[in-house]
Amino acid sequence: MANATTRRGLAGELTAEFLGTMVLILFGCGVVAQVVAGQLGDHDSISWAWGFGVTFGVYVAARLSGGHLNPAVTVALACFKGFPWAKVLPYSVAQTAGAFVAALLVRWNYTEILAKADPGHTFKTQIVFSTLPGNGVYPVSELGALRDQIIGTAILLLLIFAVTDLLNTPPGANLAPVVIGFVVVAIGMAWGADAGYAINPARDFGPRLASFLTGYGTAWRDQYGNFYFWVPIVGPLIGGLLGAAIYRLLISPYLPVPPEEQEPGRVPAPDAGK
Amino acid sequence: MANATTRRGLAGELTAEFLGTMVLILFGCGVVAQVVAGQLGDHDSISWAWGFGVTFGVYVAARLSGGHLNPAVTVALACFKGFPWAKVLPYSVAQTAGAFVAALLVRWNYTEILAKADPGHTFKTQIVFSTLPGNGVYPVSELGALRDQIIGTAILLLLIFAVTDLLNTPPGANLAPVVIGFVVVAIGMAWGADAGYAINPARDFGPRLASFLTGYGTAWRDQYGNFYFWVPIVGPLIGGLLGAAIYRLLISPYLPVPPEEQEPGRVPAPDAGK
Amino acid sequence: MANATTRRGLAGELTAEFLGTMVLILFGCGVVAQVVAGQLGDHDSISWAWGFGVTFGVYVAARLSGGHLNPAVTVALACFKGFPWAKVLPYSVAQTAGAFVAALLVRWNYTEILAKADPGHTFKTQIVFSTLPGNGVYPVSELGALRDQIIGTAILLLLIFAVTDLLNTPPGANLAPVVIGFVVVAIGMAWGADAGYAINPARDFGPRLASFLTGYGTAWRDQYGNFYFWVPIVGPLIGGLLGAAIYRLLISPYLPVPPEEQEPGRVPAPDAGK
Amino acid sequence: MANATTRRGLAGELTAEFLGTMVLILFGCGVVAQVVAGQLGDHDSISWAWGFGVTFGVYVAARLSGGHLNPAVTVALACFKGFPWAKVLPYSVAQTAGAFVAALLVRWNYTEILAKADPGHTFKTQIVFSTLPGNGVYPVSELGALRDQIIGTAILLLLIFAVTDLLNTPPGANLAPVVIGFVVVAIGMAWGADAGYAINPARDFGPRLASFLTGYGTAWRDQYGNFYFWVPIVGPLIGGLLGAAIYRLLISPYLPVPPEEQEPGRVPAPDAGK
Repeated sequence: MANATTRRGLAGELTAEFLGTMVLILFGCGVVAQVVAGQLGDHDSISWAWGFGVTFGVYVAARLSGGHLNPAVTVALACFKGFPWAKVLPYSVAQTAGAFVAALLVRWNYTEILAKADPGHTFKTQIVFSTLPGNGVYPVSELGALRDQIIGTAILLLLIFAVTDLLNTPPGANLAPVVIGFVVVAIGMAWGADAGYAINPARDFGPRLASFLTGYGTAWRDQYGNFYFWVPIVGPLIGGLLGAAIYRLLISPYLPVPPEEQEPGRVPAPDAGK
Repeated sequence: MANATTRRGLAGELTAEFLGTMVLILFGCGVVAQVVAGQLGDHDSISWAWGFGVTFGVYVAARLSGGHLNPAVTVALACFKGFPWAKVLPYSVAQTAGAFVAALLVRWNYTEILAKADPGHTFKTQIVFSTLPGNGVYPVSELGALRDQIIGTAILLLLIFAVTDLLNTPPGANLAPVVIGFVVVAIGMAWGADAGYAINPARDFGPRLASFLTGYGTAWRDQYGNFYFWVPIVGPLIGGLLGAAIYRLLISPYLPVPPEEQEPGRVPAPDAGK
Repeated sequence: MANATTRRGLAGELTAEFLGTMVLILFGCGVVAQVVAGQLGDHDSISWAWGFGVTFGVYVAARLSGGHLNPAVTVALACFKGFPWAKVLPYSVAQTAGAFVAALLVRWNYTEILAKADPGHTFKTQIVFSTLPGNGVYPVSELGALRDQIIGTAILLLLIFAVTDLLNTPPGANLAPVVIGFVVVAIGMAWGADAGYAINPARDFGPRLASFLTGYGTAWRDQYGNFYFWVPIVGPLIGGLLGAAIYRLLISPYLPVPPEEQEPGRVPAPDAGK
Repeated sequence: MANATTRRGLAGELTAEFLGTMVLILFGCGVVAQVVAGQLGDHDSISWAWGFGVTFGVYVAARLSGGHLNPAVTVALACFKGFPWAKVLPYSVAQTAGAFVAALLVRWNYTEILAKADPGHTFKTQIVFSTLPGNGVYPVSELGALRDQIIGTAILLLLIFAVTDLLNTPPGANLAPVVIGFVVVAIGMAWGADAGYAINPARDFGPRLASFLTGYGTAWRDQYGNFYFWVPIVGPLIGGLLGAAIYRLLISPYLPVPPEEQEPGRVPAPDAGK
């Protein structure tokens, strides 16, 4: 993907991941604040705005970094598509930093509404920033939430691999980011009740830290009092690899062999998973 | 559609149908579990997530198998578009198997929430997996449900034939799977009250079997005590043929004649109905 | 738009308008039946399914007839884009017939649910088929409803002219039908409270007749007892001309002059407003 | 963007901005009237219809004026993309005039419903036309609303710059207006609780004036009695510059250098931000 006319480099890739993930979380934590604390909208609003946040974040970052916005994506690409392992940690840090800054902005902007809805800054609005087993209300255990995060992220990566694979039949006209946004919309609608569909370690850890530093003392624990923050980190990393592996095992072996004479300088169609 | 550079074959087609239908049901049964048992979301969530499940499943499978994901589609294509009859049964089995495995995953992931919402595993949450006349609440008979399944699947196939017909004006940029997903969204909104819009024998039978094996003893019957499982199998097969026939009778005869000199090696635009 | 390789003719155009409008009403009356009588979904479901019904109906008909599906569109195209006046009446009859047949199918499919929700077949469910001033509940007069239908249809035609004008910047990849569907979604959300956004004489008259013949004795009148059926016929015809005229007056004079050397045999991009 | 075959000029640009912003407000104020006064739909309807209004307004105006529809966009383009400063005021006036006329039409069409829901024409339905801190119900101060308008419009312009930058990976097939519409949908869902997401001085001032002239005596003040109308003017102008600057600082320096040999006569992809 090197291109003589670009000025890309690691710095550009990291600012892109930072800003793209920031956009994602500006919409993601923003909508939960508006719905949970502001009581404006419902769970469908949450699903749509998270999904669109992914779409927009990818459009911001795609040309420079591929628009991963998610360490689970970055790790899966390193394992299966030759993304350099040396960049995995820098990418993950940039993603988490972007999520952290965005969560601070949401925290700041909704100061009054959060204080009105939940003066003690309890689990009730901690969920604006980070996930809880069973969203804090269903009887789901840590292990149940881990299972959910593995499956949910497996679905995400399986579909990212599918709709960005030029050997398969991906959407054209640079619209893969819209379809990937729809994937997150639908995961929110169908796989959000057990653990709040973090499906992204940066999305969960960055805002969790931001909330902890701004008055949410219980941020690292769940409603049972257990440390919970590791679940939406470990689950997505495992699940992402699983989903990518399933695509590689069940679909890739039967796809066409890429032509050897493909022009090396050709800019590929935007590939959110590259 | 044979292509010298592909490694396709029946094995690839069947894994594609298996995995594509699995994706469909991961979203489809997942969203009903979340809404009905988890009380997160509403009927619109159900319509959107089922529709997007179709979109994503087709993107996963389209290059290898055409992305039927539905025996009613496979049979209609065999009748009207020369799809080999010898593949109809293998395709249908792969679709049903994918739906079955996906339903088991939904059953497993939502174990706690299903047990909390419906400890006896009754009709109340059986509807997460398989359909009932009048969704278990409206006074619709078996015959009424059969009528509904015939009409609903006729609409589905009529529209699949329309938006994948290169002689008509289909959507471009590989976006037919998105439009077909919207078709299922809209069928859920407009044709879902009489019989839960199975419109797909594999979608209904696979999860029905999965629920029966995991504690839903009433899975084969409806709320009146009658055997019902055959309705969302027979209705869609009849309706699919009917819808495809209407397209072929009312639209196809007036469309342009396909040029004889069409290059044989050209990869056609993605054709979810091929 | 004549093409030597097509077998088009008035018969094909009329079956296309018939079937396309039928598809529109299958979703349109279907969703209102499901929401109003079946209490499944809400007003947003109604907006989405009507809009998608337009999208799908246009995809069915576009190649053969242009996909008007609406006498207000046909008349405006005759006035402003050279559509033959001799075809206006046949098109309008075919559209109304398609809407009539679709409404009978909805009436048949939802027999039990309509009977349960409204045994007397009153205004409560007449609204499934045809519109009422203020949707039967708001204090809107006939004249208010006429005003609303003029404005609403003016918006529709203004936007159809905009997104199908190749001299402007229309959506590509054959996606204008999706955008036009979104127009109807948004009109339902923003211009539906005064008179139920018929914005289409065939959409209102065909189902009104179908409901009258199947037990809705009050179909021709509104809740005040006045004859009302003419409002959603006359209003849209006037409004459509108004909206098209505004586009022609304010936008068209400044657009580029079409090149004279445009190849005559070229199939234009799908033009829902042709 | 000059083109020898066009008849464009300032007159055409201004009518385009007038009509495009009018379309935006016809949907925007229309949907709030329908939801707030007509109680048909919910906050998601508001988000969707405002967003689609942007999409349609841009399609109407894009070829002639670029489809700014918003003085905050126009000013940001003047600062960062060489849009002529001399046109900033005329564009802003045309946008505000379009919004004013559209608001009058909404006011007229929903006369009866507004009078029924809010006979005194108070803050309850003033919100149909212009925004209030905390939408009139949350404890948000003027300063809090200003902060919100700055952040919200910064997000808008950052994303407009991203999805219309041909050096980045914008959506193709002339679909940027749809994606920009989705941006406004998502801002409505995630950034609407503090100040009603005006994010556009023309969108707020034009309808505010229209409501003042038609019976809303409190139009210039907020629920605390303070003059408020300047907040959704000043906030968006600052925020728009901020968002555009962030894109220019963090993304643009790393993008490819535009090729010098780009053909001058080529019509660029529709650029809503040009």
